[in-house]
Amino acid sequence: MPVFESFTELFNGQPRAVARAITAVESGADDAAALMKAVYPKTGKATVVGITGSPGAGKSSLVDKLALYYKDLGEKIGIICVDPSSPFSGGAILGDRIRMSTIGLDKNIFIRSMATRGNLGGLSRATVDAVSILDAAGFDKVIVETVGVGQDEVEIVKTADVSVVVLVPGMGDDIQAIKAGIMEIGDVFVINKADREGVIRTQKELEALLSLAHRPDMWNPPIVRTVATESKGIEDLAAAIKSYYEFQTGESRGIARKTAIARWRLLELLQERLLSDLMKQNGTREKLDKLAQQIAEKQNDPYSAIEAIIAEARTK
Amino acid sequence: MPVFESFTELFNGQPRAVARAITAVESGADDAAALMKAVYPKTGKATVVGITGSPGAGKSSLVDKLALYYKDLGEKIGIICVDPSSPFSGGAILGDRIRMSTIGLDKNIFIRSMATRGNLGGLSRATVDAVSILDAAGFDKVIVETVGVGQDEVEIVKTADVSVVVLVPGMGDDIQAIKAGIMEIGDVFVINKADREGVIRTQKELEALLSLAHRPDMWNPPIVRTVATESKGIEDLAAAIKSYYEFQTGESRGIARKTAIARWRLLELLQERLLSDLMKQNGTREKLDKLAQQIAEKQNDPYSAIEAIIAEARTK
Repeated sequence: MPVFESFTELFNGQPRAVARAITAVESGADDAAALMKAVYPKTGKATVVGITGSPGAGKSSLVDKLALYYKDLGEKIGIICVDPSSPFSGGAILGDRIRMSTIGLDKNIFIRSMATRGNLGGLSRATVDAVSILDAAGFDKVIVETVGVGQDEVEIVKTADVSVVVLVPGMGDDIQAIKAGIMEIGDVFVINKADREGVIRTQKELEALLSLAHRPDMWNPPIVRTVATESKGIEDLAAAIKSYYEFQTGESRGIARKTAIARWRLLELLQERLLSDLMKQNGTREKLDKLAQQIAEKQNDPYSAIEAIIAEARTK
Repeated sequence: MPVFESFTELFNGQPRAVARAITAVESGADDAAALMKAVYPKTGKATVVGITGSPGAGKSSLVDKLALYYKDLGEKIGIICVDPSSPFSGGAILGDRIRMSTIGLDKNIFIRSMATRGNLGGLSRATVDAVSILDAAGFDKVIVETVGVGQDEVEIVKTADVSVVVLVPGMGDDIQAIKAGIMEIGDVFVINKADREGVIRTQKELEALLSLAHRPDMWNPPIVRTVATESKGIEDLAAAIKSYYEFQTGESRGIARKTAIARWRLLELLQERLLSDLMKQNGTREKLDKLAQQIAEKQNDPYSAIEAIIAEARTK
C-alpha cells in the first residue's frame, strides 16, 4: 500500500497526513524508512521542548497551558505524550481522552499519545521520529511530554532542544533519588503547584543542588514557579525555554550535542533493524516461540537459546 | 581473564562473588554468557518481588522495611534498585549512599543499584540477569525496586513473580495518567504514607478503578495501607505478596506467563547481541561516528545511514 505517494499534505501540516505518518513509524511499517528519508531534510526549524517530572507534578496541565500560550502567539504546536505501557498487553491510555476536551480540538494544536510498544521495542526511536515528522510538517513548537520518568523517557527528553524538569513542593523522601537521575537533564526547572506549602524549601533545595552540579556548557538552569491550573507563570516558563534555546544554538557545543544524539539514534535504529531482519527470516519466529517455552520449562537457558537462533540464521 | 573459573562462591551467596557476577552482566563482559548459562539452571527458588510507583511515594523506605521484615524471619534478601540515568553521561546515583547506612551493612541483605546504560542499551536485560544471579546465589527474596516509572521499569517489574505498585494519598491531577500505565501491572497495591489526609479518597478511587479492570486470571489485587517510616502495615504487605505468590504458582497460567517473559527476554538479548556483533566488526565504530556527524550537519539522514552500515557489514 503506497501510503506516502505524495508528501504534500504532510509537509503542509494536514493533521490526518501527520497522524498517518506517525502511525507508520510507530508500527514500523515497511514504508517508514522511505518516509523518514523524505522527512529528515525538512527538519530543524521547530523548537523541540521535552518535559518530564514525576507523575502528580501536573505536567499535563502545564503542557496544555504552554501550548495555548504559544497558540495565542500565532504558532502551531505539536504535542507527543509518551506513556508507559506493558510490553505484554500494549497497555491502555486514559490520559488522552481527558486532554482532548481542552485543547485537542484546536486546529493549531496536534496532540498524540505514544505508548504501545511492540515486541521489537523502539518506543524511543518512534518518538524521536514522530518529533521529526511534526517538525517537517511545519509545527513551530514540538512538545514531548513523558508520563513516566524512566530510562526511555530520560533518553527521549534528552534529544529535545530544551529539557524542562517539573517538580512540586514537598516531594518527600524520594527526592534524593529523583535528583540523581533527572538533575542532569534539566535545562529549565519548574516548581509547579507553587501556591502550595513548602515551595520556598523546595526552591532552596533545588538551588543548592544546582550549585553543586557541573554543566560543561556553564549554563545556569533557571527555576520557574508556576500554578498551571491557574495559568500562572506560563509566560516566565516560555521565556526561560527561549533563553536556553538561544543559548544552545549560539554555542559551538550545538554540533557536538547533535552528533551525540545522532549516534544514539543510529544505535537505536540499528538494533531495531537487525532484529527485524532476523525475525523476517523463515522459521525464526516459530523457533523463538519454541525456545521461549523450553526456557519457561527450564529445559534451556536464554543465552544458549539466542546462540542457537544466531547460529541457525548464519547458515542461511 | 577467567573470572568465573569456579562458581562455588557465587552459589554460596558470597557477596563479593555476587557483586562481581552482576558487574559482568551489567557491563556485557565476554564471560557473561558462560556465567548466565551456569546460573540459569540454579534459578527458580527465590520469590521475586517488583516494586514500582512514582517518585515521592516512599518506595525506598518501604523496601527497606520489607527487607528487614523478611530478615527477621531468617531469610536472605537481595535488592536491585533500578535508577534512571542519562544515556549520554551515564548519570549519578545518590540514592544508594543513603540506603547503605540503614540496611546495607547487614550480611543477610545484599543491595545493588543498576543505572548506567551503555550505548548498547540493555538495562532491562541486565536487571533480569541480576535477579537470576541473586536467585541462583540462594537469596530467598529478591526485591526489584524502580526509582523511575517508565517503559523499561514497567517491563522489568512485570518479570517479577509479584508486582507491587505504591501510591500515596492525594496524587493530584496526574492520577488518571498514572493509572493507565501502572494499573494493569499491579498484583498488590500499597497506599503508603497512609497517615496523611486523603487516604480514604485515594483508596475509593483505586477500588473503583480496580473494579473496572479485567484481569484474565480473575485475581482481585489487595490494597494495603502502610506508613513505611513507622514500620506500619509491613506485615500486611508481606502477607499480600505471599497470597499472590501462592495464587500464581498454583495457576496453570504460570507457564504461559513464564513463556511470555522468556520470549521478551530472548528478544532483548538478541537485539543486544546482534548490535554488539556488528559493532565488533572492523571499522563499524568509526563509520558510525562519521555518519553521526554527517547527520548532525544535515548531510545525511539516520535511515540512509543505517542502510549504509548494514550493507557494508554484509559484504564482509
